[in-house]
Amino acid sequence: MKNYIKPSEWNIVEEGFDPHLNKISESLFSIGNGRMGQRANFEEAYTGDTLQGNYVAGVYYPDKTRVGWWKNGYPDYFAKVLNAANWIGIDIKADGETLDLNTAKVRDFKRVLNMKAGYLERSFTAELQSGKVLRVISKRFCSIADDELAAIRYEVVAQNFSGTLTITTAIDGDVKNQDSNYDEKFWEEVSKGFQAETAYITLRTKKTNFEVCTATNTQIQLNNKAVGAKAAPIEKEKYIASAIELPVEAGDTVTIYKYAANVSSQNYDKAALQGAATAAIARAVEAGFDALFEAQVAAWANKWEEGDILIEGDVAAQQAIRFNIFQLNQTYTGKDARLNIGPKGFTGEKYGGSTYWDTEAYCIPFYLATAPQEVAKNLLVYRHNQLQKAIENAEKLGFKDGAALYPMVTMNGEECHNEWEITFEEIHRNGAIAFAIYNYIRYTGDASYLASHGLEVLIGIARFWKQRVNWSAEKNKFVILGVTGPNEYENNINNNWYTNKLAAWCMRYAKEAAELVKAEDASRYEAILKQVNFNTQEFEDWTSIADQMYYPYDEKAGVFLQQDGYMDKEQMLVSELPAADRPLNQKWSWDRILRSCFIKQADVLQGMYFFEDEFDTETLERNFKFYESRTVHESSLSPCVHSILAARLSDEEKAYEFYLRTARLDLDDYNNDTEDGLHITSMAGTWMSIVEGFAGMKVRDNKLQFNPFLPSQWQSFSFNIGFRGTQLKIKISSAELSITNNSSETVAVSVFNETFDIAQGEKKISLKALSL
Amino acid sequence: MKNYIKPSEWNIVEEGFDPHLNKISESLFSIGNGRMGQRANFEEAYTGDTLQGNYVAGVYYPDKTRVGWWKNGYPDYFAKVLNAANWIGIDIKADGETLDLNTAKVRDFKRVLNMKAGYLERSFTAELQSGKVLRVISKRFCSIADDELAAIRYEVVAQNFSGTLTITTAIDGDVKNQDSNYDEKFWEEVSKGFQAETAYITLRTKKTNFEVCTATNTQIQLNNKAVGAKAAPIEKEKYIASAIELPVEAGDTVTIYKYAANVSSQNYDKAALQGAATAAIARAVEAGFDALFEAQVAAWANKWEEGDILIEGDVAAQQAIRFNIFQLNQTYTGKDARLNIGPKGFTGEKYGGSTYWDTEAYCIPFYLATAPQEVAKNLLVYRHNQLQKAIENAEKLGFKDGAALYPMVTMNGEECHNEWEITFEEIHRNGAIAFAIYNYIRYTGDASYLASHGLEVLIGIARFWKQRVNWSAEKNKFVILGVTGPNEYENNINNNWYTNKLAAWCMRYAKEAAELVKAEDASRYEAILKQVNFNTQEFEDWTSIADQMYYPYDEKAGVFLQQDGYMDKEQMLVSELPAADRPLNQKWSWDRILRSCFIKQADVLQGMYFFEDEFDTETLERNFKFYESRTVHESSLSPCVHSILAARLSDEEKAYEFYLRTARLDLDDYNNDTEDGLHITSMAGTWMSIVEGFAGMKVRDNKLQFNPFLPSQWQSFSFNIGFRGTQLKIKISSAELSITNNSSETVAVSVFNETFDIAQGEKKISLKALSL
Repeated sequence: MKNYIKPSEWNIVEEGFDPHLNKISESLFSIGNGRMGQRANFEEAYTGDTLQGNYVAGVYYPDKTRVGWWKNGYPDYFAKVLNAANWIGIDIKADGETLDLNTAKVRDFKRVLNMKAGYLERSFTAELQSGKVLRVISKRFCSIADDELAAIRYEVVAQNFSGTLTITTAIDGDVKNQDSNYDEKFWEEVSKGFQAETAYITLRTKKTNFEVCTATNTQIQLNNKAVGAKAAPIEKEKYIASAIELPVEAGDTVTIYKYAANVSSQNYDKAALQGAATAAIARAVEAGFDALFEAQVAAWANKWEEGDILIEGDVAAQQAIRFNIFQLNQTYTGKDARLNIGPKGFTGEKYGGSTYWDTEAYCIPFYLATAPQEVAKNLLVYRHNQLQKAIENAEKLGFKDGAALYPMVTMNGEECHNEWEITFEEIHRNGAIAFAIYNYIRYTGDASYLASHGLEVLIGIARFWKQRVNWSAEKNKFVILGVTGPNEYENNINNNWYTNKLAAWCMRYAKEAAELVKAEDASRYEAILKQVNFNTQEFEDWTSIADQMYYPYDEKAGVFLQQDGYMDKEQMLVSELPAADRPLNQKWSWDRILRSCFIKQADVLQGMYFFEDEFDTETLERNFKFYESRTVHESSLSPCVHSILAARLSDEEKAYEFYLRTARLDLDDYNNDTEDGLHITSMAGTWMSIVEGFAGMKVRDNKLQFNPFLPSQWQSFSFNIGFRGTQLKIKISSAELSITNNSSETVAVSVFNETFDIAQGEKKISLKALSL
Repeated sequence: MKNYIKPSEWNIVEEGFDPHLNKISESLFSIGNGRMGQRANFEEAYTGDTLQGNYVAGVYYPDKTRVGWWKNGYPDYFAKVLNAANWIGIDIKADGETLDLNTAKVRDFKRVLNMKAGYLERSFTAELQSGKVLRVISKRFCSIADDELAAIRYEVVAQNFSGTLTITTAIDGDVKNQDSNYDEKFWEEVSKGFQAETAYITLRTKKTNFEVCTATNTQIQLNNKAVGAKAAPIEKEKYIASAIELPVEAGDTVTIYKYAANVSSQNYDKAALQGAATAAIARAVEAGFDALFEAQVAAWANKWEEGDILIEGDVAAQQAIRFNIFQLNQTYTGKDARLNIGPKGFTGEKYGGSTYWDTEAYCIPFYLATAPQEVAKNLLVYRHNQLQKAIENAEKLGFKDGAALYPMVTMNGEECHNEWEITFEEIHRNGAIAFAIYNYIRYTGDASYLASHGLEVLIGIARFWKQRVNWSAEKNKFVILGVTGPNEYENNINNNWYTNKLAAWCMRYAKEAAELVKAEDASRYEAILKQVNFNTQEFEDWTSIADQMYYPYDEKAGVFLQQDGYMDKEQMLVSELPAADRPLNQKWSWDRILRSCFIKQADVLQGMYFFEDEFDTETLERNFKFYESRTVHESSLSPCVHSILAARLSDEEKAYEFYLRTARLDLDDYNNDTEDGLHITSMAGTWMSIVEGFAGMKVRDNKLQFNPFLPSQWQSFSFNIGFRGTQLKIKISSAELSITNNSSETVAVSVFNETFDIAQGEKKISLKALSL
């Protein structure tokens, strides 16, 4: 656990330069715009410890799988997020001596990530070994208003010397993935050159043949006057740069504007790529840095209007939640249904792939409430577009007749994970994908999605479950054998309650969805059934299986059993574990973890969260107490579900405690792994803890409901959400719930089961009377 | 399945040269002497497809582990059987043109492995592209009488030309393992040179720093007269050779004698290695090829005297069983307790390591009956010597206080396998190691082994089981969770009947063994208890756990359940599987295999084989019928156990059917993998099928018992065994059991529960009267 980030409501601030923290800061200060992003690497040369990272969304490399022991059905490759051309390079030499913070004496170092306006600023004073002192202030952003563009302003002051500054600005495509399985480089050069002052380089990925053209234009001012001298071009393999030598006097300020564009063959014909990149650069140069920056500020203001959370009385919590919201919005903007939310976003390489069940289980609720409806919808369409691949994926495992198994980790719909106990057995992901469709319609009311996209997906999923169950003559029920539940500290278990529950629900919901489509649009219904070659007998099978599904239950404890045989384990509590044994995944061998009763992340409780309305408070409480005391939360996705359920059970202290465990996970480097990148998808869970937990927000019967409480550590909290065309601001203080309706339409809202019609403007509701 | 090996009672014969079969033949015709061995590679240059393999027992390389996803507790390395210096090289050039069977026209090719005398012979006529014809006859062997030595006689006749033959004889240490994880070479050169006519090269393994000195001496005759000309030395990195040019006339015969020695730093000081190698060569040269060969013939005659099986009326079966016995004797001679029986012996690289539970479960019975007592004993001592490593191995997994978990795969006592479901969970191996001690004493009567070695091992193993069980409040019994049984088509299961059975037995036997040692030698007993820091409370714990062990059982079917929940599976029979689905491990994805009811190899039945006397025939029959019909035998270790139990149940047809599945596994390349090497350890199972199955041999109450039958396809079968100092020949025909006692001591033998005293000489017992 680190504690070096300064508290600030809108900013992430690092003061002083500690090379040992540099890779952590490179992750924390990452910037992105949904289309591209990068770690907070330095513009100038740096010979110290660093993880270079520039990423272009959707551009991946199928790295050949590495495996100890091959199992039938493993995918051949693991899709890697690609480290792409580095376009930030601005090398500075003072009379031939390189500015390098690893060798210089560094003073007044400050790095600020301004979350309100979406930019990264860095300033420092560096004394070179010769004694020359340079003062640098750099500012850069990836434009969220024009997502092909990024810009840097890099100011250098020659503080104590007169001489020559050599400035080299480069695009370096000769980069590598640190996680390359066989130490290969993934890019090859297509072309490069200069078009007028604009440098460009087009690189192609091996195997996948994506092409990305990166272009930059550099403009240099000396004491605010444009420098006339022409830069000299430098070309090497996969590298293009230009260098200029500037005579400077002590006190002179050199300002370098560097505009960058990234365009890829996902969005342009390959022949048009170079033209698109230079056109984007032309737009940037035409507008200039200040105008681009203004547009950035405005675009971010708009995002905060939709999804800010304001916490009064706790700066650390305020900083944390904004950091989470900011990073989620940098990672995914929802404009493109081919993209998704990688577990590390644009902040690192780890985990490869871009899509996990995290998207459906954790991210969708966030985007539903804080972004236009299209954003969450595009996440659903992403899976719809990959349905055929999910069917092929299931076929590889022996399923047939249109059964679809979505992959555990994917970039393009194909499975890339290769651990049998996860890849083949963590099939509950299929349920989360169906649940997300339900959740989207519940929130938005957009049931037309079923006819346009959803039903096909639901049929594929229900077909999978039908084939995946088997009849147990022993239990006289349908069972699901050989699975791994959300709790990955159990492998290859039988009758995981969560999986069985979700499977039965999927089959019922698919039938319900079909009936709904039939009622709304009979011809579309017929068309879908024909297309998927449907036999109506399937409906009966689904119902019959769902009705006869086996659910493990322990009579004595009155709890749903996570899986068959769970009570055979030695029953211990997390509170009995010696501190030296934790985290278990670092201290215990894998088999010991597996046979212990300890749970990595919410499993039964994840199911009770999804299907909360089915359970009375006593049942929820019994299960919560039982499982909470056995859960070690060694997944960042776990505490949020516990926080929400604790809030449901009015255990405000526990709810807040679990919230704390996720909120500053990365900022405080809780797990010692922030240097690899941020835990992007679990950030949505932090948002959920506040909105669904503390505020108790849910949507039932087409209405918003709140069951709020105020953590005692806070004075108030408020958040902005969108709901069915209205934009609401919800503010919760100890005594009062205030709802501000920013639209002209009246919205009905339930608070503790009493319903209020909220017209335009603010309405204050006293909580005292209601919650008694 | 191939069928190119010619039937012969004592020989393995290949006629005609088919390059596509060459790697298979290289495996089948392998030779070895327990200390070194090699694949049947060609002496002369060969540019066709080949797997070069020369191995020195006990010399291994710890190749860095390759893994997809690291789990806590995995070993850092996988010990590889090392491909060592190639000493057979004899390159022939005719007027500069290389003799290479890949480019020449080959006629009259014949390869013979003479199992009676233990040598490999090859003859062929090769027409080079120039039209020159050479006739070659080569003969080579690894001396089992002097196991540092090997010899080759290589005869070349220049059939149709006069010119110059260039003969280069080499030691090539610049070799690689095909299965090198990171494409590394494992050897580096220490020294090389000539000492008089003898070439030597000393190589050192990286990391492990084994040194092996290989030396050769070449003597050449032209038409049976020594050639006077001196050879020219050739030295390259890790390579030493000498070349000679001989003018020949058409019809001349050149005979090359090449003597080779391999000595390693396991047996000599490194400083003395070169001296030891050249001394060995001097012995060989002094004796000459013919005398060395005579000693070889005599040594093998002795081995066959101890362990031959003679089958009348079925040449294919005769060839097969001798092949199995021959290969086992080539692999392990029992002289050195640091060595063991690798799954591929000296015939290939695959599976690395040298020791699996195969040794205890399958090989020990073979060596007990067919070799001096010391041989099986040394296999036990091997584990005794590795006890400390087994304790450390258990500690890595969280066990303590002297609990020992022997590794799944090892070279030096450390675990090298890295698949969690096997490495950490296939813990039944610990039971087989204890059972082997029991089995050894049961056969030999040598109970003193407990005091000298066995008890410490048994205590370490019992301590492991004690810590590995846990109390299930649910079942009110002790359970063993999270294991993989012998049936590796199930992973991470609970209460594997075989494992639970063996665990309870181990704890009881350890206590019994302790009592025995106490009674026999109280001071030794005290010394052992002190040494292992024993608390006598442990005895009570063991008994209590063994008494309260849980055994899954199905009342309805009346069978022991392989594991908890087995009856929840869809119950199918192997007979219902479509042929296209087999073998399952190639046709089904891993998860599908896991959740099916199909069994890879004997599991419950393995336990019933070990503890046969505990079960009545009806129980055995019910379990056999149930499991046999669900077992796919996709391990070569499976059919033998089924064959033996079928024989017990008087199902002679099934017993023979299962025998057939193993007997010619390699000779007929049944699984299409013989080219990788032979299935050495499963060969012992074939022997067991005949001796323990058809002949029904067992040892009970210090007496041999037979319950024989004759497969209807045979006229008779007989075998030689040693039992407690006597050497017996047992012959079974349809009507009669003949026992020839070659020693002067009278032996009591039971046949179908009637006891006979067998004095020296032959005794014939009519089976008709007895079996009625």
